This record gives sequence, structure tokens and C-alpha cells, in this order.
Amino acid sequence: MPNAIVINVIEVTEGREDAALTAWEAFAEYFRRQPGYVSTKLHRAVGADARFRFINVAEWESADDFLSALKSPGLADVSPGAPEQVNFFTSIYEVIRS
Amino acid sequence: MPNAIVINVIEVTEGREDAALTAWEAFAEYFRRQPGYVSTKLHRAVGADARFRFINVAEWESADDFLSALKSPGLADVSPGAPEQVNFFTSIYEVIRS
Repeated sequence: MPNAIVINVIEVTEGREDAALTAWEAFAEYFRRQPGYVSTKLHRAVGADARFRFINVAEWESADDFLSALKSPGLADVSPGAPEQVNFFTSIYEVIRS
Repeated sequence: MPNAIVINVIEVTEGREDAALTAWEAFAEYFRRQPGYVSTKLHRAVGADARFRFINVAEWESADDFLSALKSPGLADVSPGAPEQVNFFTSIYEVIRS
């Protein structure tokens, strides 16, 4: 049972969807090789008018595992970060109602 | 297998968490009685500095089921909408990578 859920809310200017997806792929390829990674699901909005084009929901064994992966120097080698006109809002969550 | 995922990204001004949660409970109570509803998970940010305090991920059998529930007159009876200083950004999503 994963103990930490990491959600990336991804804000994308129109026309920058491919750049956002390419950046996400690079991050995902890196994170899935890190200790404590469990799974990820990238959601894309069906309609064109969604406020947030992509939302990624990842499961980790613990918040510390995710934080260690974030701090690892390997991350900078994989991706230079979010491309222009793409914002990643990333936080650790827990499920409080279901 | 659900065919539509409805995500609410919930932006909350500090101190308005309880009001947001009460509004969410009223919506959830209504939606879970509607045809095509499958499940929901309300996520709360662990850290105080998260850009989005709550993120709800619900599964529906189809987008049409969710849209019908949205249009039903019963919704207005259940909740007057989002309280002040609470914004719900709601869209329909599909999983494109996992």
C-alpha cells in the first residue's frame, strides 16, 4: 500500500502540449527507476477548455522516497526542468475521503 | 472499467479549508447517488505550502453520466456551489500514460 501520492497539476499554454508531454516523459523515465516508486498515471483533459491540460498522479512507498528522488543529482541530467509556458505544480498528498 | 475520470483541482485561501471540505462533502453526497458514478478519492496536501490544498479524482462510467448529473436540478438543492475564497477547477480526463 503506497503511503504517499504525488500529484503534478500541469498548466500549459495552448500549443505547448507536445513540449509538456516530452518533459513529462523525461521526468517519468527518471522517477520510475528510483527506489520507492510504485506507479504513475498521466491524465489528459478531454475538452479543449480545461484549466489544467495534464494531471499526473503517482504513488510512492513513502514521502521520503520521493523527496530523495527529487534531491538526487541524476534528476538534473535527465531533464532541464519544465519548458517555457509549462508550469508544474507538484505536491505530496494523502487520501482523506473515498 | 470506468471510461471517464473527473478531477477537481481545489484552490483554497488559507483558513478556508473547512469551508472547502464541507462544500466537497455536499457535492460528493449528491454525486455518489447519481447513475454512472463509480468512485471518488479526495486528496489533501500534506505540506502547508501546496498550491492546491485538495484534489479530488472521481471515476464515472461515462462522461455523459457525469454531465447528466451536473445538469440535474437536484444539484442546486444540495449545494449553493463553492464557498467564498474556494475555487473548484473541474474537467473530464482520460489516462494517456501509466
